[in-house]
Amino acid sequence: MRSLVARARIVAHRGAESAAKEDLLVTEEPLEIRLGHGPTDDRREVRLSVTMRTPGNDEELSRGFLFTEGIIHDPAEIVRIVPCENVKEEERGNVVRAELDPTVQLDPSRWQRNFYTTSSCGVCGKTSLDAVHAQCTREMEPFGPVDGEVIASLPEKMRAAQTVFEHTGGIHAAALFDREGHLLILREDIGRHNAVDKVIGALLQLELSTTGLQLLVSGRAGFELVQKCVMTGIPLMAAVGAPSSIAVELAQQHGLSLIGFLRGDRFNMYSPIDPNP
Amino acid sequence: MRSLVARARIVAHRGAESAAKEDLLVTEEPLEIRLGHGPTDDRREVRLSVTMRTPGNDEELSRGFLFTEGIIHDPAEIVRIVPCENVKEEERGNVVRAELDPTVQLDPSRWQRNFYTTSSCGVCGKTSLDAVHAQCTREMEPFGPVDGEVIASLPEKMRAAQTVFEHTGGIHAAALFDREGHLLILREDIGRHNAVDKVIGALLQLELSTTGLQLLVSGRAGFELVQKCVMTGIPLMAAVGAPSSIAVELAQQHGLSLIGFLRGDRFNMYSPIDPNP
Repeated sequence: MRSLVARARIVAHRGAESAAKEDLLVTEEPLEIRLGHGPTDDRREVRLSVTMRTPGNDEELSRGFLFTEGIIHDPAEIVRIVPCENVKEEERGNVVRAELDPTVQLDPSRWQRNFYTTSSCGVCGKTSLDAVHAQCTREMEPFGPVDGEVIASLPEKMRAAQTVFEHTGGIHAAALFDREGHLLILREDIGRHNAVDKVIGALLQLELSTTGLQLLVSGRAGFELVQKCVMTGIPLMAAVGAPSSIAVELAQQHGLSLIGFLRGDRFNMYSPIDPNP
Repeated sequence: MRSLVARARIVAHRGAESAAKEDLLVTEEPLEIRLGHGPTDDRREVRLSVTMRTPGNDEELSRGFLFTEGIIHDPAEIVRIVPCENVKEEERGNVVRAELDPTVQLDPSRWQRNFYTTSSCGVCGKTSLDAVHAQCTREMEPFGPVDGEVIASLPEKMRAAQTVFEHTGGIHAAALFDREGHLLILREDIGRHNAVDKVIGALLQLELSTTGLQLLVSGRAGFELVQKCVMTGIPLMAAVGAPSSIAVELAQQHGLSLIGFLRGDRFNMYSPIDPNP
C-alpha cells in the first residue's frame, strides 16, 4: 500500500531564527475510478472520475462516492471494486475498477457532472435541492432530541482516534458514532469529501442500520456533505465549522439534524428548527 | 446581486442551556460556466462545469478557473464573460457565459476532467506534475529570500480585510500581497479553490506583473492551489495550514516558494529547499 505520509526537509522559521529539520507531510495522489461489467476490463469500460486523495481505503472511497453521488442507486449494484491491473507500473494503486451489476447501464453522459446538475432542470438552489430529493432512495428515521453531553464529547473522541493528523497536522477526518457516542468508523483524507465517502463506503459494506447514527466532520458543513448524509440516511451530522445556507436548507427539507460550530460544550443546531416556536 | 449571507434561525447550546437566536450563514449556490463564440448563444455552446460557490465576483471566478485549469492558455483568449440571459428566472445570476476568441476550439472532450488527467499519460503523482509542466505557459521569476516579518504580518492583514467571515465564521479567503506586504486583492468564498480563482481572475484582468507577489490562503496547501499559482506565475504561496506531499513536489519543481503553518511569527518553508545544505 502507498504510504499515508511522506518525509520532507523543511526550514522552520520563528521570528528572526530559522532551522532546517525533517517533517512529515500527508500524501496526496490522484485516484481514478473506472466502471465496467464482468470480471475483466472490457471495451465499454467508463473512466468516471479522478479525485486527489490520500491513499488507503480506496475501495470504501469509491463505494461511498458512487452511492452518495447518485451514480448507483443501491449498494448492491456494485459486484466488487478491485485495483486495476492493466495499468502502468507507476499508476498501480491509483486506479480502481468498480464492477457493476449487468443491469446497470454504463452511460457516460449521465455521469459527466455532479448529479444535481444533470437533472436537466437548471442551476439554482432550488433545483439542487430538488435533485437530491429525486435521487434519494433511502428513508431517514429522524434522530430526535440530541444529548448535549454526547454531542460535546464527539470531537475529542475523533481526535484521539486520528493517527495521521498527529504527525502531519494536515488531514481531514470524518467519524461515525452510534446514538450513545461510541465511535464506529473513523477515516482520514486530505479531502473532506473523501473522508466522508470512505466512512460511508465502510458503512455500506457493513450493511449497518443508519438509525441513530451521528456523523462528525472536521471542517465545515457544505451542501455536498449534507447531501452525502441524506443520500445514505444518516440522521445527524455535526461539523466543527460553519454550515452554508443551502446545506441548512437541504438538512431542513430532509429532517436531518444539523449541528455546526461544535467546540467544547457549545454547538449550534440549524435543523430541525421549529418554524413557529 | 445575490446576497453573500443568508439569515437563519438556530438554537445555540452551551452545556445544559439552549436558546433560540438569529444567525447569519454564508451563501452557497451553484455556478455554471458555459463557453461559446460570438456575442450571442449559439448551438455549439459548451456547458463546461458547475461549481458550488458563494455568489459575487463570478466573472473573476470564471476567468481564474478557465486559466488556471488550462481550459485556455492565454487570458486574451477570453473576449468577455457575461451573465447568461436566456435562462429561467430562478437561475439568473447563477449561469455565466465566457465568449472565447474564435481561434479557440470548443472541444468538450478536452475538458471533461481536470487537465492533469486528460494528458493521456496516466494517473500517478509524476504524471500530475508533468501535466502542469506541459500546460504551463508562464515563466515564474523566483521570489528570492523571504522577509520573515512581512510573512508573519500577512494573516492579520487578510483577516482584518475580510468582511463575510466576521459575520458567518464559515468562509475561506485568499489574498494577494506585493513584496512589501501591501494587500492588493482579497476575495472570499465558501470554496478554497474558488477564493483563489477569484483573486487570480482579478489579477489577470488588471494585467499586473506577478513578480514579487505573495498569495496567502486561509486553509491548507494542496496540489490544486499550488497548481493555480504555478499556472499564473505567482512566485510565493503561504498557507495557514499544512501542505500535501505532491503540493511540495510541484512547488519545488517550479521554484515556487511554499510556506505552510503560518501562525504568529512561526512558519515552515517547504520550497525552495537546498538539497545539499
